[in-house]
Amino acid sequence: MRLTAIQLYDKLIQEDKILELKGQIKFCLGDVDIVVKQKDVVGNIIQEWLQGWLKKRGIEYALSGNTQMPPDFYLNTKDKSKDLLEVKAFNRNASPGFDIADFRMYEEEIIEKPFMLDVDYLIFGYDMNDEGIVTVRDLWLKKVWQITRCMEKWALNLQVKQNVVHKIRPGVWYSKQRVSFPMFESLEDFVSAVEETVYQNPKTHHDAAAWKGKFLTNYETHYGIRLDIPRWNDIAGKYRN
Amino acid sequence: MRLTAIQLYDKLIQEDKILELKGQIKFCLGDVDIVVKQKDVVGNIIQEWLQGWLKKRGIEYALSGNTQMPPDFYLNTKDKSKDLLEVKAFNRNASPGFDIADFRMYEEEIIEKPFMLDVDYLIFGYDMNDEGIVTVRDLWLKKVWQITRCMEKWALNLQVKQNVVHKIRPGVWYSKQRVSFPMFESLEDFVSAVEETVYQNPKTHHDAAAWKGKFLTNYETHYGIRLDIPRWNDIAGKYRN
Repeated sequence: MRLTAIQLYDKLIQEDKILELKGQIKFCLGDVDIVVKQKDVVGNIIQEWLQGWLKKRGIEYALSGNTQMPPDFYLNTKDKSKDLLEVKAFNRNASPGFDIADFRMYEEEIIEKPFMLDVDYLIFGYDMNDEGIVTVRDLWLKKVWQITRCMEKWALNLQVKQNVVHKIRPGVWYSKQRVSFPMFESLEDFVSAVEETVYQNPKTHHDAAAWKGKFLTNYETHYGIRLDIPRWNDIAGKYRN
Repeated sequence: MRLTAIQLYDKLIQEDKILELKGQIKFCLGDVDIVVKQKDVVGNIIQEWLQGWLKKRGIEYALSGNTQMPPDFYLNTKDKSKDLLEVKAFNRNASPGFDIADFRMYEEEIIEKPFMLDVDYLIFGYDMNDEGIVTVRDLWLKKVWQITRCMEKWALNLQVKQNVVHKIRPGVWYSKQRVSFPMFESLEDFVSAVEETVYQNPKTHHDAAAWKGKFLTNYETHYGIRLDIPRWNDIAGKYRN
């Protein structure tokens, strides 16, 4: 059975009622079983769990070979340029602790493969209580621009170590309070922020002049649509409260 | 049933045949079970497993409140100055990655409670294969001086960060090859190395003059034996090949 990401999401929520399930991690050696109460493990095993679920439900999928970059799963094994699914998970009692991608790899990847911008992010906000009971408190299906934002000094929220740009980090997209840096409103604004970051980042600065042109050409070749990407300075005001 | 550490060790080896058991970590959510293949989790759950085993076998134990310092278990709940058990576990395909204790806390603790030197270390050398099958390849019962050694600049093998002494680290006590720094041969030599480290360490240097005297007095009060602790310089040659 072939499902799109949204069909898969609906199935998890409505048929499997995933938000009502109670899970556990158990260690069994000999005749002694114990419940593992380590919260930090959960994030790493949700993706394996989803794979087990896809298999059990007979849903078509292929694994991506590259664990460094999205996606984790291809939901259309015939056409690997659509229905790409990336799985993320984080402890719902803390902030999203996962990375979106290495910035450098990401900005190169979306030029090469503009359909990477259309990856669906299936995000598990899990909880483990003191008895080790695991629940999925929230499940979201998002596009990359719906879970990213800018920061004070950069057009994207980045992990920067000793002035070197590393990972693109998510924002808190589900906050009900007014946030200092709201999520991007559109794909175009997100791409504008990526372009600005290519320009801001010393390591990619020399690529900045050609970046947008290449991206627009490749995007148009793939989708037949010429995007209209605003200049970051024209929209930055919307994203900094 | 009250067991000493050596009886407990024998029971694990001979009755439970722990070295032949095959374990697994499983995550179950809904009707989908997956095997967790994360090696780094195992070390942290072995202690919980041992507690489950003690309970299931009806063996007397009490937990220590302080997770920072040995022991993990009191095997004699009436007399908490003997039959102390500390549990350690490490991936048998790597070097022992656990800490013995924070040096500063440890040197103070053995003055206060000289019986801490008699703690039994029950050490699990585990393995997880590519299918996630966990086995205990080695199980050791050791005293602290049998698993510690000196290093080039210090009389103990220490984790030193920016010139500040942190943890006492174990040696590779099971190596069949000739090692540069062999394990200590006796309790007395280990205590000598602790004293020398108190002296070497800037943060404890001012305690060094009184340290040995206090230790010897308290040890004699508890055990009725006056130890003969050699000077480090007289024995260091044995421990540096």
